[in-house]
Amino acid sequence: MESLIILKTGGNVIDHPSALDAVLRDFAAWQTPGILVHGGGKIADRLMEKLGIVPEMVEGRRITDRETLDIVTMVYAGLINKNIVATLQSHSCNAIGLTGADANVIPARKRPVKEIDYGFAGDVDPACISGDMLGNLVKAGLVPVLAPLTHDGAGMLLNTNADTIASAVAVAMAKTYRVQLIFCFGKNGVLRDPADDNSVISFLDEALYRQYRNEGAITAGMIPKLDNAFAALHSGVDEVRICSPDGLKAGHLGGTRIRLKS
Amino acid sequence: MESLIILKTGGNVIDHPSALDAVLRDFAAWQTPGILVHGGGKIADRLMEKLGIVPEMVEGRRITDRETLDIVTMVYAGLINKNIVATLQSHSCNAIGLTGADANVIPARKRPVKEIDYGFAGDVDPACISGDMLGNLVKAGLVPVLAPLTHDGAGMLLNTNADTIASAVAVAMAKTYRVQLIFCFGKNGVLRDPADDNSVISFLDEALYRQYRNEGAITAGMIPKLDNAFAALHSGVDEVRICSPDGLKAGHLGGTRIRLKS
Repeated sequence: MESLIILKTGGNVIDHPSALDAVLRDFAAWQTPGILVHGGGKIADRLMEKLGIVPEMVEGRRITDRETLDIVTMVYAGLINKNIVATLQSHSCNAIGLTGADANVIPARKRPVKEIDYGFAGDVDPACISGDMLGNLVKAGLVPVLAPLTHDGAGMLLNTNADTIASAVAVAMAKTYRVQLIFCFGKNGVLRDPADDNSVISFLDEALYRQYRNEGAITAGMIPKLDNAFAALHSGVDEVRICSPDGLKAGHLGGTRIRLKS
Repeated sequence: MESLIILKTGGNVIDHPSALDAVLRDFAAWQTPGILVHGGGKIADRLMEKLGIVPEMVEGRRITDRETLDIVTMVYAGLINKNIVATLQSHSCNAIGLTGADANVIPARKRPVKEIDYGFAGDVDPACISGDMLGNLVKAGLVPVLAPLTHDGAGMLLNTNADTIASAVAVAMAKTYRVQLIFCFGKNGVLRDPADDNSVISFLDEALYRQYRNEGAITAGMIPKLDNAFAALHSGVDEVRICSPDGLKAGHLGGTRIRLKS
């Protein structure tokens, strides 16, 4: 099976141009075919603030109303996505920026209204992702750059969590590729001691994960990320890695390597 | 040679959701492979106004400074492009939204500073357009939807006139397709009497164009469009058509048909 790297990079990288530039330079230098998934960062918040749009929050969670959807479409699919593509192109990486609507790569379902109406938020099912289309683009030498937006097939764009997209695309692509899924964010990896940036756990399998959790070493914010990582591994992804921009050098990947078996 | 339709739709269509919906429905219903090129409309102006950004104008022409470039990237490549893509997808048309940076389809050159510095404005050379890449996407059953942005290959996006992109892409694709280039805008076509919307000239070749110009029948605003049309025909495009959204019904194209020979 051919290898494919899916790199998710998020908020605190997107918000720091020099960090983002470094990530894109390293990503472009890899010889392995890749897909980049990016989050949104704080640019959308700042634009909403400038426009006097007050984010609608329910129980601490952002609701995507129509105004917010337009803002994130502009910022995620326009400003962030196209600048990433132009930067990758300058590093001779033939990037193609996509939302889930483009070439229908990620059809989604508007989140059903239960206790909370999340508005135009999309839930993704890996089984519905067009792995064939993404694979054809990759085979054509292109590097898909996915913005965190999907669509419902009936004309509506939907705001979708970038971590979720990265995991779902990784699972879909694992049918035909040996997939390595990398989450690149601010921390150096999964830390044994949240106060010590250098206490990176270099390897985790499920037994070790349980052990660290039981010891209280792994923080609450990391638990959903790791649960998602193990879910992806159980669905066919070969390896998940959590690292900082410093951990992305080709041939010298850093951070925490996560596998079902070492 | 296989046929390819390149449809340019612009400002006054983009600004009227019902007109845009009708254009997209008709475009999606065509059986011929197609490429859609869209302009920007007034949404970017309104957003700049809301943000208190004063457009920089020199001799009546908009200058694309860095702030303006970010706005048009958000509006053209994000809001407009992705909503068009999602709408086309809802009509079972497998649209893929692109700027010239995506897959490097339209490399451009920042306009050289002479009397006026236009800022981040891109000039396009049809010879540099990646007709092969666009052709591969079309052959894969995809319908490229081009936003009026290009890139310089060194990481900068560039604001580029949508009519220019449409003509240049038409010329580039004419090497391998029999290309029909359609400009869809507010008027019913080229008018014999600008005051009479029903005075559409149904056919123009160069002799007729000269004749109408000499009679003063064709208005100043239409002359650059027609000069561009004939330039495209001389560069291999098979037919140019200028029509309104009403003229786009499959099999019943209206407006003004323009060819070198009838």
